[in-house]
Amino acid sequence: MTLHQLTLSGMLAAIEARQCEAIDIVESCLDRIAALEPAVGAWAHLEERAEWLARWRHDESRYRQLPCKGLPLGVKDTIDVAGMKAERGSAIWTGRVAAEDAACVARLRAAGLHVAGKTVTTEFAYFSPGKTANPHHLQHTPGGSSSGSAAAVAAAMVPVALGSQTAASVIRPASYCGVAGYVASVGMFSLRGVMPLAGSFDALGVLARSVEDLQRVHYGLCGEPFNVAQQPQGPTTLLAIDGRAFGDIEPAMLNAFESALQQLAARGIRIVRPGNREFGASWPRLHQRLMACEAAQTLAFEWAASREAMSAPLRDLINEGGNTSFNDWSELHAQSEAARVELEALRGGCDAIIAPAAPGPAPAGLGATGAPFASRPWQLFGLPQVTLPLTRDTHGLPLGIQVVGRTRGDRALLELACWLEREMGWRHAPPVDSDFSARG
Amino acid sequence: MTLHQLTLSGMLAAIEARQCEAIDIVESCLDRIAALEPAVGAWAHLEERAEWLARWRHDESRYRQLPCKGLPLGVKDTIDVAGMKAERGSAIWTGRVAAEDAACVARLRAAGLHVAGKTVTTEFAYFSPGKTANPHHLQHTPGGSSSGSAAAVAAAMVPVALGSQTAASVIRPASYCGVAGYVASVGMFSLRGVMPLAGSFDALGVLARSVEDLQRVHYGLCGEPFNVAQQPQGPTTLLAIDGRAFGDIEPAMLNAFESALQQLAARGIRIVRPGNREFGASWPRLHQRLMACEAAQTLAFEWAASREAMSAPLRDLINEGGNTSFNDWSELHAQSEAARVELEALRGGCDAIIAPAAPGPAPAGLGATGAPFASRPWQLFGLPQVTLPLTRDTHGLPLGIQVVGRTRGDRALLELACWLEREMGWRHAPPVDSDFSARG
Repeated sequence: MTLHQLTLSGMLAAIEARQCEAIDIVESCLDRIAALEPAVGAWAHLEERAEWLARWRHDESRYRQLPCKGLPLGVKDTIDVAGMKAERGSAIWTGRVAAEDAACVARLRAAGLHVAGKTVTTEFAYFSPGKTANPHHLQHTPGGSSSGSAAAVAAAMVPVALGSQTAASVIRPASYCGVAGYVASVGMFSLRGVMPLAGSFDALGVLARSVEDLQRVHYGLCGEPFNVAQQPQGPTTLLAIDGRAFGDIEPAMLNAFESALQQLAARGIRIVRPGNREFGASWPRLHQRLMACEAAQTLAFEWAASREAMSAPLRDLINEGGNTSFNDWSELHAQSEAARVELEALRGGCDAIIAPAAPGPAPAGLGATGAPFASRPWQLFGLPQVTLPLTRDTHGLPLGIQVVGRTRGDRALLELACWLEREMGWRHAPPVDSDFSARG
Repeated sequence: MTLHQLTLSGMLAAIEARQCEAIDIVESCLDRIAALEPAVGAWAHLEERAEWLARWRHDESRYRQLPCKGLPLGVKDTIDVAGMKAERGSAIWTGRVAAEDAACVARLRAAGLHVAGKTVTTEFAYFSPGKTANPHHLQHTPGGSSSGSAAAVAAAMVPVALGSQTAASVIRPASYCGVAGYVASVGMFSLRGVMPLAGSFDALGVLARSVEDLQRVHYGLCGEPFNVAQQPQGPTTLLAIDGRAFGDIEPAMLNAFESALQQLAARGIRIVRPGNREFGASWPRLHQRLMACEAAQTLAFEWAASREAMSAPLRDLINEGGNTSFNDWSELHAQSEAARVELEALRGGCDAIIAPAAPGPAPAGLGATGAPFASRPWQLFGLPQVTLPLTRDTHGLPLGIQVVGRTRGDRALLELACWLEREMGWRHAPPVDSDFSARG
């Protein structure tokens, strides 16, 4: 395994064991980016190599003292990094340079991660895609909105990357690109410097090639030293929700999900299922309507000044929100609160919810990022989520599974996901044809 | 009454009745600012008159079509306005110019309010005060952190101003300056472009000289036409919490509060009180500790780059938050959730909570902004709040009362406050010596 293919934890272990130095890993990642970026298009902004290395060298002595040793971090282009472009996937913000670090970036820099560059986002983290392709198949979408972060991690350009999720923007690209993804509880981490879309649902996300790496970044965001159980605890009971009430789940995904549940049951884990097949059927639309109300507020500045530069789907979202009255908005919130109570009653003492991370494998084509309904229900309630690569379909495209925790139960959920990764073998596998010679 | 002394609603009525034009009111406000700003110090950034008027004239034809006719709005300097300075009360951000409008500013501009300038804030909306004096007595604090917004409205420089509250930053300056104040439910309005301090508690606020004006701004923030009941509904039952469990309430405030309750009872309103005198005693400290955890995240960028330019109280806050472990943080959240349930059980069917808005009148001295404990409990739960000027102490300093609603029950709370203002006569009265000739 070459250096850039290691997980963040593997890279740190190699440095610790003096098998290599941080700069060797950094150079390996830069080589990988140079080789694959023309095909993958994961980056919105990236310096030339000499400039990049000069910036790294500038901080090298500081990095030696820090836990993450200056290893590279991708940052979604909706998240501000001082002195770097942050164009938010919109022509309205072409050339915008951020003056300050987002809170999450400041925390991870303090832990010794080095911002490698800005990764491609859809327009304002909504639907309209950027240039990124899925490293597992370049004619398929990587998913969105954290498209570049998922693709960069899947293609082993960087070990970890930051994203954000308002509907399905981390869980879906993680599933499509076959990487591990973590969406934090809404409100857990400061979103200062992260372009909002709908504040009640916006959550920070992380993409990585192992759950342990997600845990490392979680600790960094908490401002705490990394410190996890060597023997993670597995679940005793899981609430399985197959997602068919939310939308069309494709047979490949349904089969993979049911097979996963059988494997879990074979390990003695109790699987609970909703008695009602229609359980939660109204939740995706409820999330969508509430999100529209908030997006219309969030983007009021662009709406007033330059709505003609917005895509039609974004204008539709803002129009829907703008046309929702305060009373209807309040009623939607009341429905959401009732739904939350219903879910918590069903969940009971289950250790987590388990569900398909997406309706199926990444669809063909780069003009859309796939359907978000499989994550909307969890984002409606601001719950923490972790995606794990479960398997592949017959074409080699990844299929992800997600576990959903309790509000602020992020750490327990990550531990449970770590157990699933180790014990069930649900872990990242690189793209089948990882030099892309047969693709494109 | 001169034009600048009218409420926003009064100004609009005068324009509607062709008693004056918007420009006459605008000029009257500018005259007022010119006369009183040297003594009051409400403004952090304000253009020269010619430049100000040129900017207004530029939008004049647009303003004619809009409900608020280009009348002036003060905006706290932690809230971004495109093209204007936004220095956040911190030397770290001296000279910073915002590139985009905060969502709230964009919405109010679309309703036809004209940003008059940026009002003084404490350092990052925390404790360390700016230059502002209380218009009722120039040797007394206006309260903070929305110091300039409260003082500018009290001094009749502008009819309305935007603030924000994380602990007591709108309710307290409203109480000290004798104006009406509104804190929105946390999460109700997008805080894009508002410098955060602690996201779980940060809420948008409005200061005005009447509750009707607060309602007008609320509708503007909702993006809806102003449309309130001509005959507002009064309360039938109020939960009265005198605040003594939270901290030292001064005799002048306690007497005013008890007298207010008697007036309400005389109107047939049922007053409910907690059976336990210590009810909620731990809540202010709980709020403070949670706020510290989040502030340490929010200000991670400044902490890394320029902590020496922060005040000692702010560094203490960040240190407290930084030294709180994830497990302790989670425990504090669990306590907060239990407290919320306890409050809602006590509140039962009461129409609102009623409480002192501050521990007493504005303290003497401009070196501190007074104690925040009287609002921390409501901000802990993200509840909407409205302050009304209740009466004055023997020195002529205002004493405020606050009503506290249910999450997202902002509109009902504003209607209730409108009733209290009309029926109980709890309304703004200008500073006794409003030309300040005997002060300063």
